[in-house]
Amino acid sequence: MKGIWLENQQLQFRPNLPEPEPAPGEALIKVIRAGICNTDLELLRGYYPYRGVLGHEFVGIVEKGPNELLGKRVVGEINVACGDCHFCRTDQPTHCENRTVLGIVNHNGVFADYIALPIANLHPVPEALPTDTAVFTEPVAAALEIQQQVHITPNDHVLVVGDGKLGLLIAQTLALTGCELLVAGRHPEKLAILKHQGITTTLADTVTARSFDLAVECTGNPAGFELARQALRARGTLVLKSTYADNLNINASALVVDEITVIGSRCGPFDKALTVLATGQIEVEPLIQGRYRLEQGIEAFDHAQKRGTLKILFEN
Amino acid sequence: MKGIWLENQQLQFRPNLPEPEPAPGEALIKVIRAGICNTDLELLRGYYPYRGVLGHEFVGIVEKGPNELLGKRVVGEINVACGDCHFCRTDQPTHCENRTVLGIVNHNGVFADYIALPIANLHPVPEALPTDTAVFTEPVAAALEIQQQVHITPNDHVLVVGDGKLGLLIAQTLALTGCELLVAGRHPEKLAILKHQGITTTLADTVTARSFDLAVECTGNPAGFELARQALRARGTLVLKSTYADNLNINASALVVDEITVIGSRCGPFDKALTVLATGQIEVEPLIQGRYRLEQGIEAFDHAQKRGTLKILFEN
Repeated sequence: MKGIWLENQQLQFRPNLPEPEPAPGEALIKVIRAGICNTDLELLRGYYPYRGVLGHEFVGIVEKGPNELLGKRVVGEINVACGDCHFCRTDQPTHCENRTVLGIVNHNGVFADYIALPIANLHPVPEALPTDTAVFTEPVAAALEIQQQVHITPNDHVLVVGDGKLGLLIAQTLALTGCELLVAGRHPEKLAILKHQGITTTLADTVTARSFDLAVECTGNPAGFELARQALRARGTLVLKSTYADNLNINASALVVDEITVIGSRCGPFDKALTVLATGQIEVEPLIQGRYRLEQGIEAFDHAQKRGTLKILFEN
Repeated sequence: MKGIWLENQQLQFRPNLPEPEPAPGEALIKVIRAGICNTDLELLRGYYPYRGVLGHEFVGIVEKGPNELLGKRVVGEINVACGDCHFCRTDQPTHCENRTVLGIVNHNGVFADYIALPIANLHPVPEALPTDTAVFTEPVAAALEIQQQVHITPNDHVLVVGDGKLGLLIAQTLALTGCELLVAGRHPEKLAILKHQGITTTLADTVTARSFDLAVECTGNPAGFELARQALRARGTLVLKSTYADNLNINASALVVDEITVIGSRCGPFDKALTVLATGQIEVEPLIQGRYRLEQGIEAFDHAQKRGTLKILFEN
């Protein structure tokens, strides 16, 4: 099969990869749509020494698996859990101590013709939900993880820092809480996508210091972290939603003096993400800025890496 | 009056400082005992550009003030709040936006013969409580702030990193929760103080990674932070209890992947601290390692700055 292979921070299109063999309890899935995520770009920059097929955001069709899923479109949770460790036994499989992670840790990813995934990881895509929308399930689930971790009320003043693809999704999922929301970015054309939905936006250098209860850092760079921290009032909460290729240099004393809470936030609930997408509560298709075939993998990544690019998809 | 003055990161003993004039609502207090805190040492190193009399941990006797306090021993909360801002109105005066802070921010401190403080900041010292014990009220209150912020259960595996004066107090207040507690330090002779009280201790390089639910960083140095972070399992909580003279360089991606919560923690409840001290639930006098008069201020600070020194007191 075809696939996009990462090794030593080098990407290759490979035309003759072996097709995965589903283990017992797994399904074989033909990938029909996949999205490039910022984590893919970070892996390319060496954030984690991964070797294998890249990619973890996808919609596919089950070709081998249980009868009720055969021929159906599915999305899939990316953490493949052992079922046995403390975190699996306490219903926190995304933190399984022995996990592999689709396209990230020891598990071939979705920029390929086929993947194998445990049946337990799969969620059928509602019939009315377009494939182009469903391919956003994984990042929307990650966005919703914030509400799983922090109780957000309509009284809360909330700042999203960053107008990249994750920032635009997070802004929309946070808007569902009814909070007082402001999104700070550097790209008027991207902020316009949110404005169109009635979300208040501003340029990053106009944010008022010490005035937010919650700030969500979606830029993955130190300036974004610093903006988020300074925007918080005392006892505020700073959610970290991005991985960082390098260490972050922070003013830890300010966190102590202001009793700030910093919360790392990763994978979230797929079922809720599918509901939010299926009911049209958020709008993801304006984020799509390019479509490529696997053979054009290098070109697709060049596009995705251009400053300011939103979502790039692979179609199969 | 006599006092120890900080200016441009230089300490001076000054024999002729003006006595403070209590404003309406304030009391005049003769300081009889005061303790050197790590924050005093950080101020000396330039953590914050403070100019004035240093010191914030004290026991004093009220010389001017309301009848019911006259001649009584008191301790005092260090944040002098405006009573008017969002934080004052929501019963969070330690975060008052217009506060001064005794010996730290725009308010002369306690390494002097006299201080003036709002009557609202004062707590009478129970008669049976020795002055040498009561002088620990402020740091014990700061230690108890952790339990105000984090719900700690007897099932939680808790690590205290650091066997300095704050670490030894925090270890004892955390032990009151009944949690599974381990204290990691570098000084067997200090850890012995805790062992004597039945608290389990270990040398810092023997801590098992990824095995604690809560880690409290009390060293104020980057190695302590890293030890605390690595000791946590996924979804664990890292409490920052120390101020840092420099920025801290952290692996932010690890916080995201493991969904770690980092909580800055500062001042705590004086009333609870007095109760804990008065009932003998924790033992503070073994931490006292030196007693000086104000005239010996420079010598006292030299002693306090020696690696491994615990509590140094001023007596008046």
